[in-house]
Amino acid sequence: MSNKAIRVVQYGLGPIGSAVARHIVERDGVELVGGVDIDRAKTGRDMGEVIGLDSLLGFPVVNDLALVMERTAADVVMHTTGSFFDIFESQLVEILKAGLDIVSTSEELSFPWLAHPDAAARIDAAARQAGKTVLGTGVNPGFLMDSLPLNLTAICQRVDRIDVTRRMNASLRRGPFQAKIGSGMTVADFMLNMENGRMGHIGLPESMGMVFSTLGKTMVKYESGVEPLIADSPVTTDYFEVQAGQVRGLKQVARGYTPDGEFMTLTFIAALDEKEDGDTILITGKPDLEVRLRGTNGDTATVAIAVNAVHRVLDAMPGLVTMRDLPIVTIW
Amino acid sequence: MSNKAIRVVQYGLGPIGSAVARHIVERDGVELVGGVDIDRAKTGRDMGEVIGLDSLLGFPVVNDLALVMERTAADVVMHTTGSFFDIFESQLVEILKAGLDIVSTSEELSFPWLAHPDAAARIDAAARQAGKTVLGTGVNPGFLMDSLPLNLTAICQRVDRIDVTRRMNASLRRGPFQAKIGSGMTVADFMLNMENGRMGHIGLPESMGMVFSTLGKTMVKYESGVEPLIADSPVTTDYFEVQAGQVRGLKQVARGYTPDGEFMTLTFIAALDEKEDGDTILITGKPDLEVRLRGTNGDTATVAIAVNAVHRVLDAMPGLVTMRDLPIVTIW
Repeated sequence: MSNKAIRVVQYGLGPIGSAVARHIVERDGVELVGGVDIDRAKTGRDMGEVIGLDSLLGFPVVNDLALVMERTAADVVMHTTGSFFDIFESQLVEILKAGLDIVSTSEELSFPWLAHPDAAARIDAAARQAGKTVLGTGVNPGFLMDSLPLNLTAICQRVDRIDVTRRMNASLRRGPFQAKIGSGMTVADFMLNMENGRMGHIGLPESMGMVFSTLGKTMVKYESGVEPLIADSPVTTDYFEVQAGQVRGLKQVARGYTPDGEFMTLTFIAALDEKEDGDTILITGKPDLEVRLRGTNGDTATVAIAVNAVHRVLDAMPGLVTMRDLPIVTIW
Repeated sequence: MSNKAIRVVQYGLGPIGSAVARHIVERDGVELVGGVDIDRAKTGRDMGEVIGLDSLLGFPVVNDLALVMERTAADVVMHTTGSFFDIFESQLVEILKAGLDIVSTSEELSFPWLAHPDAAARIDAAARQAGKTVLGTGVNPGFLMDSLPLNLTAICQRVDRIDVTRRMNASLRRGPFQAKIGSGMTVADFMLNMENGRMGHIGLPESMGMVFSTLGKTMVKYESGVEPLIADSPVTTDYFEVQAGQVRGLKQVARGYTPDGEFMTLTFIAALDEKEDGDTILITGKPDLEVRLRGTNGDTATVAIAVNAVHRVLDAMPGLVTMRDLPIVTIW
């Protein structure tokens, strides 16, 4: 790596993308050189203003990466638009054709080889053709339920099962997150949304897939269910007033099975007024490991890991890579 | 990687080496093909008998790697002889000349670039010339106080300081370990041994060095001190009877400083009847992270990580590598 600052284009300026962009502005060694979003309320305005800085950055948000590339050279795109391949695949191809490496927070990209093998192969081929690297990362998926538990198995002689639980007190999180987990919904509305596939954390199959694949396990069955957590008494946050009997959040459990039976569970609990806030990784085997983490919750961690991964992506071989393929990502 | 078993030579048949060899025998995908030790009580005897198996392995322990290579081809050496460069450097060169990759549990090899830069450069050059890879690993150094905390900084936007504490109830460990931490010594004897540099865990400077180097910090000062922990009342184990007032173990603290002040502390506590048994990693920054681990203690973890690292070493580029250079090590 040279000491010259890495030139970064922020692609997607929602809450996470704006937070990533702000963090790039405050970090040494990286320089924010462009911003892309299709939202007409953002395009044409100064990037600094759009991402919530007190100062202007001197270039406008545009709706097309090509307009950025006409104005400036760049090294890497931080991609934070959507969770799903049908939204982001064409965006990634466009970025690769522009000759840029990609770090994306798109959940389905974190380990796409099981759920979307064909699309993954297309992205991989486009990246190799461009001589560039694509990584999907984030705190979850990308770390807490996959690459970190995998790293912990390094000190195990035998692993019989892995159980990861992430418990978030959503009262501490931003409004859109509180909404996403169903805060204030009636149970009937929650159930309706759930049946339409609109409730729950995205990324559990990807985390499970990374672990099974890396450990050489065959996944013969995958189950996932979401249930509402109901408020016993009224809960008030900056964004919601939840009555007793209404939904204060959700609990989601995914189970992965080998031919020998259940091997892994991933439990995601996010609710207002949830008393605990932290993660537990249990690895049953030789030895039995119990790892408890506090402080991992919130957007801070996803913003951090995306930016911290930039060096590893620039140094990596071309292609679509995942967190289990790279040397450990660290702050720098 | 092909599906053919990786052929392993065990070099060094002390307690850890024998445990590594036994684990290789029970793991799929690896085959134990040779054993080297200079101890005349071991050479000439069947390897299975020497490492404590119930069955014979059909080849003898020899005192020279060349004798193994006359009998069989091999892929990798598990090297478990000594902690210090002056003991192991010539051994590593000999193994590299024989054309084998190396995974070593030698503490000073885990991150030698700060404390032994010249010797590290010689090993690196010998490895590149041989087209082979050398890795020093173990649970500590190699994981708990260095590569794992580094991996946890992935989700940090800012790291102000890192404090790792490893607390071991030595009553649960084998006799030589209990002896090594001073169990049953008088305080005067402990102090004498300490002044002669013979008390304390080996590897703290290496762990500290890996963290500072990886995070781009300049270490302007390094301090390390050992103190005895005294028994308040008699302590009995399978190996020791410690009277009140005698030593039941030790506490060692290492401190690393940047130009801005103290940045990292590593605290190693190992004592008989120590009530807690586990590790704590505190990262102060944005966010503050608190990670508590239980189950990491004992030789199980070092044996595991050494064997689990074999695939990564076989796949790595030639040279001397450390745990922060490889993709995350996992069980396989």
